[in-house]
Amino acid sequence: MSSNGFGTLFRLTSFGESHGAAMGGVIEGCPPGMPLDVEAIQRELDRRRPGQGALTSPRGELDRLEILSGVLDGVTLGTPIGFMIRNEDHRSTDYASLRDVFRPGHADEAWQTKFGIRDHRGGGRSSARETVSRVVAGAVARQLLTPHGVVIRAYVSSIHDVVVASDWSSLQLDHVYTSDVRCPDEDAASRMREVILRVKEAEDSVGGVVTCVCEGLPAGLGEPVFDKLTAVLAHAMMSLPATKGFQVHEGFAATRMMGSELNGIPQGVSGGISTASPLVFQVAFKPASSIAREQTMKRADGQVIQQRIDGRHDPCVVPRAVPIVEAMAAMVLADFWLMRR
Amino acid sequence: MSSNGFGTLFRLTSFGESHGAAMGGVIEGCPPGMPLDVEAIQRELDRRRPGQGALTSPRGELDRLEILSGVLDGVTLGTPIGFMIRNEDHRSTDYASLRDVFRPGHADEAWQTKFGIRDHRGGGRSSARETVSRVVAGAVARQLLTPHGVVIRAYVSSIHDVVVASDWSSLQLDHVYTSDVRCPDEDAASRMREVILRVKEAEDSVGGVVTCVCEGLPAGLGEPVFDKLTAVLAHAMMSLPATKGFQVHEGFAATRMMGSELNGIPQGVSGGISTASPLVFQVAFKPASSIAREQTMKRADGQVIQQRIDGRHDPCVVPRAVPIVEAMAAMVLADFWLMRR
Amino acid sequence: MSSNGFGTLFRLTSFGESHGAAMGGVIEGCPPGMPLDVEAIQRELDRRRPGQGALTSPRGELDRLEILSGVLDGVTLGTPIGFMIRNEDHRSTDYASLRDVFRPGHADEAWQTKFGIRDHRGGGRSSARETVSRVVAGAVARQLLTPHGVVIRAYVSSIHDVVVASDWSSLQLDHVYTSDVRCPDEDAASRMREVILRVKEAEDSVGGVVTCVCEGLPAGLGEPVFDKLTAVLAHAMMSLPATKGFQVHEGFAATRMMGSELNGIPQGVSGGISTASPLVFQVAFKPASSIAREQTMKRADGQVIQQRIDGRHDPCVVPRAVPIVEAMAAMVLADFWLMRR
Amino acid sequence: MSSNGFGTLFRLTSFGESHGAAMGGVIEGCPPGMPLDVEAIQRELDRRRPGQGALTSPRGELDRLEILSGVLDGVTLGTPIGFMIRNEDHRSTDYASLRDVFRPGHADEAWQTKFGIRDHRGGGRSSARETVSRVVAGAVARQLLTPHGVVIRAYVSSIHDVVVASDWSSLQLDHVYTSDVRCPDEDAASRMREVILRVKEAEDSVGGVVTCVCEGLPAGLGEPVFDKLTAVLAHAMMSLPATKGFQVHEGFAATRMMGSELNGIPQGVSGGISTASPLVFQVAFKPASSIAREQTMKRADGQVIQQRIDGRHDPCVVPRAVPIVEAMAAMVLADFWLMRR
Repeated sequence: MSSNGFGTLFRLTSFGESHGAAMGGVIEGCPPGMPLDVEAIQRELDRRRPGQGALTSPRGELDRLEILSGVLDGVTLGTPIGFMIRNEDHRSTDYASLRDVFRPGHADEAWQTKFGIRDHRGGGRSSARETVSRVVAGAVARQLLTPHGVVIRAYVSSIHDVVVASDWSSLQLDHVYTSDVRCPDEDAASRMREVILRVKEAEDSVGGVVTCVCEGLPAGLGEPVFDKLTAVLAHAMMSLPATKGFQVHEGFAATRMMGSELNGIPQGVSGGISTASPLVFQVAFKPASSIAREQTMKRADGQVIQQRIDGRHDPCVVPRAVPIVEAMAAMVLADFWLMRR
Repeated sequence: MSSNGFGTLFRLTSFGESHGAAMGGVIEGCPPGMPLDVEAIQRELDRRRPGQGALTSPRGELDRLEILSGVLDGVTLGTPIGFMIRNEDHRSTDYASLRDVFRPGHADEAWQTKFGIRDHRGGGRSSARETVSRVVAGAVARQLLTPHGVVIRAYVSSIHDVVVASDWSSLQLDHVYTSDVRCPDEDAASRMREVILRVKEAEDSVGGVVTCVCEGLPAGLGEPVFDKLTAVLAHAMMSLPATKGFQVHEGFAATRMMGSELNGIPQGVSGGISTASPLVFQVAFKPASSIAREQTMKRADGQVIQQRIDGRHDPCVVPRAVPIVEAMAAMVLADFWLMRR
Repeated sequence: MSSNGFGTLFRLTSFGESHGAAMGGVIEGCPPGMPLDVEAIQRELDRRRPGQGALTSPRGELDRLEILSGVLDGVTLGTPIGFMIRNEDHRSTDYASLRDVFRPGHADEAWQTKFGIRDHRGGGRSSARETVSRVVAGAVARQLLTPHGVVIRAYVSSIHDVVVASDWSSLQLDHVYTSDVRCPDEDAASRMREVILRVKEAEDSVGGVVTCVCEGLPAGLGEPVFDKLTAVLAHAMMSLPATKGFQVHEGFAATRMMGSELNGIPQGVSGGISTASPLVFQVAFKPASSIAREQTMKRADGQVIQQRIDGRHDPCVVPRAVPIVEAMAAMVLADFWLMRR
Repeated sequence: MSSNGFGTLFRLTSFGESHGAAMGGVIEGCPPGMPLDVEAIQRELDRRRPGQGALTSPRGELDRLEILSGVLDGVTLGTPIGFMIRNEDHRSTDYASLRDVFRPGHADEAWQTKFGIRDHRGGGRSSARETVSRVVAGAVARQLLTPHGVVIRAYVSSIHDVVVASDWSSLQLDHVYTSDVRCPDEDAASRMREVILRVKEAEDSVGGVVTCVCEGLPAGLGEPVFDKLTAVLAHAMMSLPATKGFQVHEGFAATRMMGSELNGIPQGVSGGISTASPLVFQVAFKPASSIAREQTMKRADGQVIQQRIDGRHDPCVVPRAVPIVEAMAAMVLADFWLMRR
């Protein structure tokens, strides 16, 4: 069943708990003879890493990637690429007090109920740290796609009530990663920063929307009827932590348009199959459940208590979601790319 | 790869073009010894069928289900359930003029590009008629779930700009199918009817939102990290024709809430795993691409023309989507149900 | 899990009980735009059919194939090919006496134990009649492979103690189907006929070996490490009813050779990957469990009785296995063919 | 497609080249809350390891297992178990001369043709060293099965022309691993040793047969029609390096028996489903391709040369195959065990 695997021809099987020995995975389907730039993968990992500014949690992970197989002298062998990233900065003691507490909004209780056991240290496998493996696989997928002209760029299009007003096509998407909030609209970015700092002070958290633009796709990606391009993208995105919604192009707003109006607008997907137009989708991220202020929470013994959760808290995780959304998009597109050939 | 199959333990493999000999499929995973009420399946099929009122297309299909295997004396054998529904009312002549035309908003061009060939008669496999097989499998899945207290009910929560104001919990969800617009709010339903009739007269179309409520789920459905309950539901829903978005509970609105606020609201899913609370999600359907008025369209030879498309046109397909959304939800939940045991 | 599906890119999902309404299936992965000769498929079905001579069971099935989807004007659409074969000659009354009896050597008791229910009429899904769906899918696979020069031919290389002495390369493999025992060696064929008639008279049964030769394979088919060509062929063959063994090239005899000796002999497979040499494998079929004479058998209530089984009995099913072995080989090779591109 | 993955609910995804950084894999499906004895896994690894006596290759690997995830305080979490074994004793220089040579009987040329690139150092991924990952997964599977009374024991039943005469039921199967040739029949073992030493001196190699006995299986394992227990076992075994054949119970000898005779013999499998009787199967291993003496071989440039291959050579790898056959059997049985629940 392999619910820790994603993809058919290009496939990641991932493993790891946030406070175990390592995160990692196995990437299958990468064609042989492809030069693999490991430093470029490391750079994408670094973009996901917290602790890079005043706006994020000061967790000092190094996230150093180690490739274990599948690559010889910088070139892929066509065999599975095994990789791992050691978990270095555990500080599990922060979590000792959480052994018997279910943090509100977290998956603690759901995992305990489902598995009867859980790694309470920082969420274990339900931690967003799990996404490092996705970033590695996505970076490999991107290297497969880039030579064919496929460009995948995501950005933060809203934080709380601050919304980027411009369409993606008038933004400088190449500058996303020079912005600490991953928003290429300077004006919006500055207001987002304000919101995040205000929320941090209030010991609370906010969510937002990531918009992803895929350009240079060949027509014909997507496998109807069940594996339409948009269906698999939705699956990929909604498998990310803290997601609450997915929409493509006009999305929910399309329900308020007329057929005659919508029929005239180019779409990056038709009948679940890519066209030659850019494909644009959006992912909604809820505010992080992990907040510093005292909250009402349930203990494993059923008792309801008021408690603070020690440790680091990101007032807004949406900027860190940007490389992860790109990674999942790259994995999906690489998979369909291989199927189409 | 099986992009015509959906599910792991409870699985549908479907086949059929809208104007071929038959639609059908194979359902695997239904446990042995389960009484199967074939008439109840037929009733769900009838709910999907067009031609039931002034509001829908007058296609006179009977959609008569024939079970070919897997059932003996009204009881499942644990073997695959093969089934088919003959396509009776072809009227393919309506489509003769479409052999070399790509209808705007349809998948005609995308399929032609991808496959180099297509069944132009009514969209072939890209036709929404494909969903009859899903309704059959969903009805079987529902019969598996119902004895365990799982109740899945969907309704139309908006058509164009008419939105049901009340929360689902204050609606009479058992009355959805007595409403021709599949909306249990009488006031909204009457305004929806007006919109649809107005749009029909204008030879145009409108979209809307279907809300689906799943009650009685056991805690523990969903398989992180990639097959979270919401991820697979999103996959299922976005594989339906004409869908543009998916959201769960607060959805995109959650991005404008504070963490402290959202942490206190019960959710039907946590970390991708069902809790004991009801699970609510929404699916956005765009206005049908098929409209009666003359439109600009492209011919296979590249020429751009103005043309009317003969045949039947639904001004609003959203009411017909309600049983299909329920069917896909039932399939997803039955699959996770079997995995959890 | 889909244990009624076989293959990844070229895939059959099958359904049907021997005495239900129909056998059938869904074939996915057939490329679009391929001319499909339905009469040629029917001819392969006819080769599997019993009742064709003194040597086989006189069951008068017509096995008339009906294609339900995926083909338009004799050309594949790239969509799933749904098909069925009605079960016409049931004569279920023959089986009434078997409702509470487990036939020796049959799967009756195993299915009853596993599923708690079974279709007792002729074995239901465990009947060898299930293989008709495989023959259809194999015939489609063969039409995919033939234009590329792939030739798959099987023959009966032994019945009981009558063994074809010559190597396959000195036999007229094109004449297999003109022999009622499916053996192109005239001398061996005539002795096989004698054995079968003698066994028929004794109300007993005999088994044998089918040898299959695959020529014209491109180098590179097979996907190590788990889906080696020989591994998937073994899976395919051992999934056939009544099989007891599989071997490739020298097979078990290779265990008695020296490395220096074997290293010099061309093999059709190396490390699980096809080479340019012909690939040869063998499948062992046990004597049919269904025999006419009175036997000791167990009743569902545990009682042990002496009983005759009414109905038709094949003294030797091995000749009928020839087209089925070819069909499964074609399915496997078509699947790897699509993967390799 | 995941041809480096095996299993459905209990599943191994493996990675690693023999002379890369590490071998390893991800095991999914192990139920949560199961005590996992890592030392017992290490012991099974040690049984596979070469360099343990005069009879085998003196490669000094330590094969030290490192568990990277999925286990907390000695208990499984229900999350994927990532693991690796560093490759310590590379000695890649032995292989420098092989960069442009295709070793006879090896997969060198097949991999080069298929992938256009290969890790020439000791076979890379096509090396039998790949099986360490299988042994780890098999040892975990065994720990899942043992508490339920399932006992899986394999032994060497023939080497070249030395065949164990006794039936498995009269052998001391618990003593297999105290025998360096993994044969519990003292007399046969001693003659096997002689053959191996003689062959070693002759710089040649010999093959043999491994017999595997599975006792304590519950009735009902196996998923017809395509995933019969014997079909998946055949797939598993034929995916091992150097295998040429698979047979179950009487195997090829059954083709020379009468139906009336075979019907009376208890079988561990019926219709592809386990019964309550012990299940016995055999796997044929060819003589190792790697021999010390000078051989005719092909260079990548097509030239045919006479050359010796430096490095270590096992005159007989069959004893080392015993724990690997057990491992694959355990994986298959654990998978079906989970499906049956």
